[in-house]
Amino acid sequence: MENYTFFNPTKIVFGKGSTNKLKELITDYNNIMFMYGGKSLKASGLYDRIIKQLDGKRVLEYPGIKPNPLIDDVRKAVDFCKENNVEFILGVGGGSVMDSAKLVASGALYDGDVWDFLEYREKRPEKALPVGTIVTLAGTGSETNNSFVATEPETLRKIGKSGSEINYPKFAICDPENTYTVSAYQTASGSFDTISHVFEHYFWLPEDYTPIQDGFEEGVMRAVIHDLPIALKEPDNYEARANLLMASEQALFGLADVGKGYGEHVEHKMEHILSAKYNCAHGAGLAVVVPAYRRFMCAHDPKKYRQFAKNVFDIDTTGMSDYEAGIKGIEKLEEFIRQIGLPSTLKELGAQSKDDVDLLTEALCENGWIFKNTIVTKEDIRAMYASVYE
Amino acid sequence: MENYTFFNPTKIVFGKGSTNKLKELITDYNNIMFMYGGKSLKASGLYDRIIKQLDGKRVLEYPGIKPNPLIDDVRKAVDFCKENNVEFILGVGGGSVMDSAKLVASGALYDGDVWDFLEYREKRPEKALPVGTIVTLAGTGSETNNSFVATEPETLRKIGKSGSEINYPKFAICDPENTYTVSAYQTASGSFDTISHVFEHYFWLPEDYTPIQDGFEEGVMRAVIHDLPIALKEPDNYEARANLLMASEQALFGLADVGKGYGEHVEHKMEHILSAKYNCAHGAGLAVVVPAYRRFMCAHDPKKYRQFAKNVFDIDTTGMSDYEAGIKGIEKLEEFIRQIGLPSTLKELGAQSKDDVDLLTEALCENGWIFKNTIVTKEDIRAMYASVYE
Repeated sequence: MENYTFFNPTKIVFGKGSTNKLKELITDYNNIMFMYGGKSLKASGLYDRIIKQLDGKRVLEYPGIKPNPLIDDVRKAVDFCKENNVEFILGVGGGSVMDSAKLVASGALYDGDVWDFLEYREKRPEKALPVGTIVTLAGTGSETNNSFVATEPETLRKIGKSGSEINYPKFAICDPENTYTVSAYQTASGSFDTISHVFEHYFWLPEDYTPIQDGFEEGVMRAVIHDLPIALKEPDNYEARANLLMASEQALFGLADVGKGYGEHVEHKMEHILSAKYNCAHGAGLAVVVPAYRRFMCAHDPKKYRQFAKNVFDIDTTGMSDYEAGIKGIEKLEEFIRQIGLPSTLKELGAQSKDDVDLLTEALCENGWIFKNTIVTKEDIRAMYASVYE
Repeated sequence: MENYTFFNPTKIVFGKGSTNKLKELITDYNNIMFMYGGKSLKASGLYDRIIKQLDGKRVLEYPGIKPNPLIDDVRKAVDFCKENNVEFILGVGGGSVMDSAKLVASGALYDGDVWDFLEYREKRPEKALPVGTIVTLAGTGSETNNSFVATEPETLRKIGKSGSEINYPKFAICDPENTYTVSAYQTASGSFDTISHVFEHYFWLPEDYTPIQDGFEEGVMRAVIHDLPIALKEPDNYEARANLLMASEQALFGLADVGKGYGEHVEHKMEHILSAKYNCAHGAGLAVVVPAYRRFMCAHDPKKYRQFAKNVFDIDTTGMSDYEAGIKGIEKLEEFIRQIGLPSTLKELGAQSKDDVDLLTEALCENGWIFKNTIVTKEDIRAMYASVYE
C-alpha cells in the first residue's frame, strides 16, 4: 500500500427534498453568484425552488454555462465575479457548471490567468471563494471533490486537474429527484463516466492486494450496471437515481482508491481529446475508447480482468484462462454499452475522415502526459483510435 | 435509500513514517496537551519521535489514560486542560486515549459536567479545542471520527456517542508501523471490533437494496479475515497491518453506511456492559456476544446472512436454504474467533456466577435504549447472555 493523505471536507446533503436545506447552508453569505446552464433548470422547477431559498440575498445570476466549458468562458465568468464583489458561488447543474464554479472561485482571487491552474501541473490555487453545488446530473462527481476541467479549443487541450484543499465545495446538495429530467442519453453518458472513473483506479497496480478498495469499487460498478438500465426505463425511479448519484460521488470522493497512488487516467485523457474535438458528451466519448483500451491492457496483464468479469458481471470463469475470462468481462461491458444506447465508434461521435485518427493521436501525445502511468506507446494509441474509427 | 448528511473533515495522513508529518500539521498551536497511555509508547520509541516533532512547543504531558476510560478520569483531565490554557490536544494511543482527547476538548470549553455529553442523547458539544490523533491500535476507528465512549462504573454504564461537527480530529496520523508492537490479543480484539462495526450496519435493514454500501462493507470484512491471521503470525507485516488499520478507519469513517440510517448497535451495547463490568478488551467482549446475537437474528430473517456467507467467507451456498447458508457463515465466524484466540464465554471474561446473566440483562435494559432498533426482547437478551455463560 502506498502512503496517502485523504482530506475531503465537503458536506454531502443527500436525498429527497435536500434542496430545501440550501437556505441554512448559505446563511453566512449575501452576494451570491448563481451559475447554471440553461432552460432545463427552469423547466424542471428547480430554478424557482433555488430562488426561493435565496430570498433576501443579492443574487447575481450567471446562466449559460455550456457543456465542455471553454476557458474563454471561464475567464469571462472570472471577470464578472471580480466586478461584482461576489462572496459565494453556487453552481447548479452537471460537471461543466460545477467545474466552472470551482475554477471561477479561485480565478477571482488570482492576479494571473485562470488557465494557469490547468496548464501548469504544479500550479494550484492558494485562495478561493467558497463554493456550494447542487448537482443535477450523476456522473462527474464534481459536486463533492476539488477537481475541474476546461478546454482550450484551438489546441484541442481539454485538461482536468485536482485543485487545492481550498477548492472543495462547502456543501453538495444531492437530490436524486433533481436528476429525473436528465435525458436517457445524458443519463447513460454520466453513469458510464462513473464506471470509467472507477476503472482508472481499479485496474491500476493489478498485482497489488487491495481488498478494501476493490470491494468499494466493485460495489460502485455493480450498482451502475444494475441501476442504469432501470433509470433509463423509469426516469423517476428514486432508488435507481439515488444509487447512480451515490455511485458517481463515491467513485471520485477520494476514499475508494486511497493507498493506490495516482491511477492510470489514460482512457480519460484519450477521451478528452474527443470531447474537445467533437463536443460530444464525455461519457459517450469514453464508451468509444474504454473497450479498446481495456482489450489492449487485458492482453498485457489479464489477472485483474478475470476478477472484474467474476465480481462485477458475475461470470462463471471456471476453466477459463485469465485472458479468456477477462475478455468475457470486456465483451459484457461492450454489450452493456450497446444496451444503454451509447456509441462505439469515432464516426458516431462525428468523425468524417480517417485522418482524424492521426490528428487525435498527435494532439494526445504532444506533451507526453499520456505516457506517465501506462505501457502504451504512441503507435498503440494510434491503433486503438483506428480500431474504433467505424 | 434514506436521506443523509455526510461530513468528515479529518485529514488522514496514512503510511510509513507519517509521524514525521506531525510538526507541519501542528504549526499553528503552542500549548499542546499530549495525552497517552503508558509505558508501551516509550518502549516502542514512538514517544521520542513525537517529542522531537513537538520541539519548540510547550508540551503538557498527560499520561496514564487507562483502557475503558472512567468518566472520573476524564473529568480530571478536563480540569488539567482548563488550568493549563491548552490550545491543542494530541491523543496518542488506541480508542481510549483518542476518545478521552475528544471528550476533554469539549469538556474544557463547557461549564457543565462532561458526562452530560454522554448521558443526554440530545446534548452535543457546541465548542471544542482542536484535537489531533496518532493511532497505535487498529479497531475503534476513533482517530478519524467524532465519537467517544466513557464509563460510569457505579451504574455499569459505558456509553458511546457521536459528538458534533466540531469534534472531528483535525488530523489523524496513521502509521501501520506504530501498530507493530500491539500484542496478539489486543490486535485480535481491535480487529474484531472493526468487523462488528461493519455488522451493525451491514445486517441492518436487510430487505433494502444497498449495493455500494454492501461492496464497501464486504471488502472491509474480507480484508480483516484475510489479514488478521497474517498480522498475528507476523506482527511486523506491513501490508497486513496497513489493511487492518485502513479497515478499522473505513468501517467508522461514516461513508460505508450512508443512506442506511442509524444501524442496529445492539451487539455493541450488549458488549459495553461486559467491558464495564469485567474491564475486558472491547473486542474480546464482542467476540462473546456477537455470534449469539447473529444466530438469533439469522433465525428471524436469514437472507442477508446468506449473502454474508457467500461474499465474505466464500461459502458455496448452492442448494442451501437462506437459514442453512446463514448459519454456515456464522459457524465460520465462530471458527475465526477461535483461530484468532478470542474468548467465547462470559466465564472467560471473568464471570464467576450465573447470577451475572441477570445482572447484565437488568443493567442493559434499564433505560430502554437497547430496544430502539431491534426486535429483541429483554428475555431474548437474557437467553443470549445465558447461552454464552460457559
